[in-house]
Amino acid sequence: MAENKALTTRAADFSAWYNEVIARAELADYSPVRGCMVIRPNGYAIWEQMQRALDQMFKDTGHQNAYFPIFIPQSFLSREAEHVEGFAPEVAVVTHGGGKELDEPLIIRPTSETIIYAMYAKWIQSYRDLPILINQWANVVRWEMRTRLFLRTTEFLWQEGHTAHATEAEAEEETIRMLGVYRTFMEQWMAMPVITGRKTDSERFAGALRTYSCEALMQDNKALQASTSHNLGQNFARAFEVTFQTANGDLDHVWSTSWGASTRMVGALIMTHSDDLGLVCPPRLAQYQVVIVPIYKTAEERTAVMEASDRVRKELAAAGMRVHLDARDDMKPGAKYYEWEGRGVPLRLELGPRDVSSGSVVLARRTGGKKETILMEGVASAITVAMNKLQADLFQAALARREAATLRGATKEQFIAKMENEGGLVYGGFCGSAACEAEIKEQTKATIRVLPDEEFRSSVAPTKCMWCGRPSVAEAVWAKAY
Amino acid sequence: MAENKALTTRAADFSAWYNEVIARAELADYSPVRGCMVIRPNGYAIWEQMQRALDQMFKDTGHQNAYFPIFIPQSFLSREAEHVEGFAPEVAVVTHGGGKELDEPLIIRPTSETIIYAMYAKWIQSYRDLPILINQWANVVRWEMRTRLFLRTTEFLWQEGHTAHATEAEAEEETIRMLGVYRTFMEQWMAMPVITGRKTDSERFAGALRTYSCEALMQDNKALQASTSHNLGQNFARAFEVTFQTANGDLDHVWSTSWGASTRMVGALIMTHSDDLGLVCPPRLAQYQVVIVPIYKTAEERTAVMEASDRVRKELAAAGMRVHLDARDDMKPGAKYYEWEGRGVPLRLELGPRDVSSGSVVLARRTGGKKETILMEGVASAITVAMNKLQADLFQAALARREAATLRGATKEQFIAKMENEGGLVYGGFCGSAACEAEIKEQTKATIRVLPDEEFRSSVAPTKCMWCGRPSVAEAVWAKAY
Repeated sequence: MAENKALTTRAADFSAWYNEVIARAELADYSPVRGCMVIRPNGYAIWEQMQRALDQMFKDTGHQNAYFPIFIPQSFLSREAEHVEGFAPEVAVVTHGGGKELDEPLIIRPTSETIIYAMYAKWIQSYRDLPILINQWANVVRWEMRTRLFLRTTEFLWQEGHTAHATEAEAEEETIRMLGVYRTFMEQWMAMPVITGRKTDSERFAGALRTYSCEALMQDNKALQASTSHNLGQNFARAFEVTFQTANGDLDHVWSTSWGASTRMVGALIMTHSDDLGLVCPPRLAQYQVVIVPIYKTAEERTAVMEASDRVRKELAAAGMRVHLDARDDMKPGAKYYEWEGRGVPLRLELGPRDVSSGSVVLARRTGGKKETILMEGVASAITVAMNKLQADLFQAALARREAATLRGATKEQFIAKMENEGGLVYGGFCGSAACEAEIKEQTKATIRVLPDEEFRSSVAPTKCMWCGRPSVAEAVWAKAY
Repeated sequence: MAENKALTTRAADFSAWYNEVIARAELADYSPVRGCMVIRPNGYAIWEQMQRALDQMFKDTGHQNAYFPIFIPQSFLSREAEHVEGFAPEVAVVTHGGGKELDEPLIIRPTSETIIYAMYAKWIQSYRDLPILINQWANVVRWEMRTRLFLRTTEFLWQEGHTAHATEAEAEEETIRMLGVYRTFMEQWMAMPVITGRKTDSERFAGALRTYSCEALMQDNKALQASTSHNLGQNFARAFEVTFQTANGDLDHVWSTSWGASTRMVGALIMTHSDDLGLVCPPRLAQYQVVIVPIYKTAEERTAVMEASDRVRKELAAAGMRVHLDARDDMKPGAKYYEWEGRGVPLRLELGPRDVSSGSVVLARRTGGKKETILMEGVASAITVAMNKLQADLFQAALARREAATLRGATKEQFIAKMENEGGLVYGGFCGSAACEAEIKEQTKATIRVLPDEEFRSSVAPTKCMWCGRPSVAEAVWAKAY
C-alpha cells in the first residue's frame, strides 16, 4: 500500500524521487535475487500496452514472432570475435543440469544472434527463402554490478528482431525502417521525443557494422538510449555460415539486422513525464485511462451515484476506453484521488449526488489543467478530446524541456560548464577520433549519444571538432547518459 | 520448405507422423541445445492465439499479469520439503555470473512458487491486501532426458497463476474456477474434449494439498495432462512465512493456489485433430482461418482474379477473420493447396476466371466435407457459418473418438488386455491404495489420470477396486499417458 506522505522532489534528489515514484505506483519491487526486479501488476500493465502497440507495428511491417532457446552453447558466443568480447564478461553460466555437470556450459542469452543464426543456417538455402523477418519477445540476462529498477537489471524483458536479407541495401533499409518504427512508437505512444541517428564505433553493438538508436532526454537532463537497430552486415552470417543461392546461382552470405527495445522503456516513460506527485502516464499506454470515483455519504446517495457512475463507465468502455470504477466502500474519495494520482491515471471523473442531479460530472486531469464540470450527455466524446489533448500536451512539454536543455554550436568551455552544471544535450562538430571521444568521456563523463539524422542536425553544419578543433567529420550530440 | 511427399501415417507410426506433421507445417524445430526446441513462426502463431484467449479469460476472472525473476536462490527450493524433492533432480543451475563464481548458486525456475511467495510475504500484511490474483507468462526449465517437440522439452513457455486468499474455502473455489477456465478454453477454443478431476496423491504437484487437471485423449489412445490447478493449502505460506492480519485481528497464513498451462497444449492440439495429410487446426486458434488461392493463366486473367480475390479478402478481414491471400506468382495453385493443407488452414477459397464471371468462389474445407461453390455476395456470412461448423465438428469428432476408446466397468483382465492392445481410457473402482496404483503402473504402464468430477463419472458407482477387489473409495480413470 502506498504511504500517504510527499515524495522526495525531483529537484532535491532525482534518483530517490524515481525510486519513490515506482514504489508509490507499485510498478516494481526489488527481488531477493541480486540485480533482478519484480515487475508488479501496475508496471506490467504498462509493459503490456507497450508490447501490444509495438507487436502490431512489427506485424504491420511484415514480421512474425517466434521463440528460440534461452540457452546458448558457450562456444557459439566465441564465433563472432567482437560479439564475444562485448558480451562474455556479463553472461550467466549454467554448469549443471539434471543433477550432473554439463559437458559444455550453457550461457543464458544476453541477446540471441548466435542461437538464431545457427537456425537460420539450417532454414535458408535459396534467395526464395529470403527475407526472413522474425521477432522474439523474451527475457535476457546481462550480469550487472549496479542495478536500477527498469533501467539496468540483470534480467530484463525485451523484444529482439532478427532479419536476414539477400542484399546489403535491403538490410540497411530494414535497419532504418525499424528505427523509424521505434521513433513512431516513442513519439506517438510514449509521448517521448527522441533523436535518431548513428552510434560512433565505440558505442556500436558488439558484432554490428552500424548501430542506430533512439535517444531521449530525461528530466534530470541525462540522456537515455531507448532502443537500438543494428545493421549486422555479413558478420554473423560468416560466423555461422548462413549462405544462400542467389538468383544468379551464386552462393553468398545473407545480410542481416537486429533491433531491440526493452522494459527499460518503462523507466524512460517514468523519467520523461512524472512529477513530484508521482507517476504521469500518457493515456495511450495507461492501464486505466479514466478512473471514476463516486462520492456519497448516505446509502440512498450511494445507490444513485453508483448507478450513474456505472452508466458513465459503460459508455466510456463502449467507446473503447480502459476505464475503472473505483467502487471501494471502505475508502474516502480523497484517499482514492491520492492513490490514482500516484499511479499516473490520466483522467479522473468525480461523481457525487449534485452531479447526478445536474447530469454532469467533474473531470480532473492528472496534469496540465484545472478541474472542469462536463455534461454526462456526450461524456465519451468529451473524454476522448481531453485524452488526446493530454497525450499531445505531454509530448509538447517533454519536447520543450528537451529543447530548453539543448545547446548547439557550443565552445569547449561552454560544453564543459554545461556538463558540470545543468547537463542536457550539446550539439557540436566531431573530428571522428575515438581518442578524442575517450578524452571527452574521461573529463566530462559525456558521451556521443548519436551522430544525428539529418532532420535533427543544426542548420549550419559545424566545421571544427568542438573538443580538439580539428576539422569536423560529422555533427554529434553529447550528453551524460543512463 | 516442406517436401512434397506423403507423411508417415498415424496407423503406421504415430510418433514419426507427429514429428512429420510438425516439420511439414514448420511449427517447430530441434535446436543445437539438447532438449530445447525452437518454436517457428507458424507454431508460435498458434501459441499467440492461445495466449490471447487465455489471457482474456484470466483477466475476466479478475487476474492481473506480473513478472518475477527467472532466477531462484537454491536455498528457496528447499524450504518446502515436498517441493524440493519433486523439483531438485531436474533443475538447471547457474554457478557463475559476470565472470565470477556465485556465493549461492541460482536455479532457473522450474515453477515460481518459491520466488513468488518470498514477494507475497513482503506485500501482504492484512486481509485487505487479499486476495492477490496474479498470473505470469514465462519460460521455465526442467531438465528432461527424453524430449519431444512441444510435449516435453527442457525449456518451455507457459503461464502460471499464483493466488493468495484469506480462507481455505476461497482458495478451493479459485482452484476449481481456474480448472473450469482451462476446460472452457480446451473445449471451446482447442475443440478438445477433456475430463476434469482430482489427481491421486502420487500424481499430485510437489507441495500441493490437492491437484486437479484437465485430461485429454490423443488419437493414439494415450492420455495427455493438458493443464493443472493446485490447491496449495498453507504449505508455501508456512514455508515463506506469508501471514496476514485477519478481520478479527488474528494472525494467519494465507491460503494459496497455483495453476498452469504450457506450449504442451500445441502438441495436444496437433495430436487431437491432425490427419495423415498434416496439421488440422481449429479455426479459433488458426494463424489464418481462411486462405484465398487465385487461379489464372494469362496476365489478363490474373488482373481480374486478383482484383476479385482482394475484394473477398477485404470483406472477410472486415468481418474480423484472419484471412490471407496467397499472391505468390511463382507457385502453382496445386502446390499452394498442398502447403496450406499441411499447415492446417481450416478453409481455403479457390478463385479462378470462371468464378469471377459467375460471381462465386469455391470453398474447400481442411476436413469434413467436399468442395462447394458459394456466392461471392454474402461470402463473409457463409464463411462464418462454415467456420463455426468446422470448429464444432472437430470437437464432436474428437469426442466420438474418445468415447469409442473408453471402457467403463472393466474387469482386471479386460483392463490389462485393453492397455496391451488398443489403449484408451478405462473407468473403474479404486481402493485408494498407492501400492495398488504402483503395481498397476508397473504391470500395465497405465496410471490414474484423474478421479473424475461428478459429471464424468459412470452412472453406477463402482463398489470394488478394479485391480485388487477391495472396496472402492472413488471411481478412477486409467490410461497410458504422455
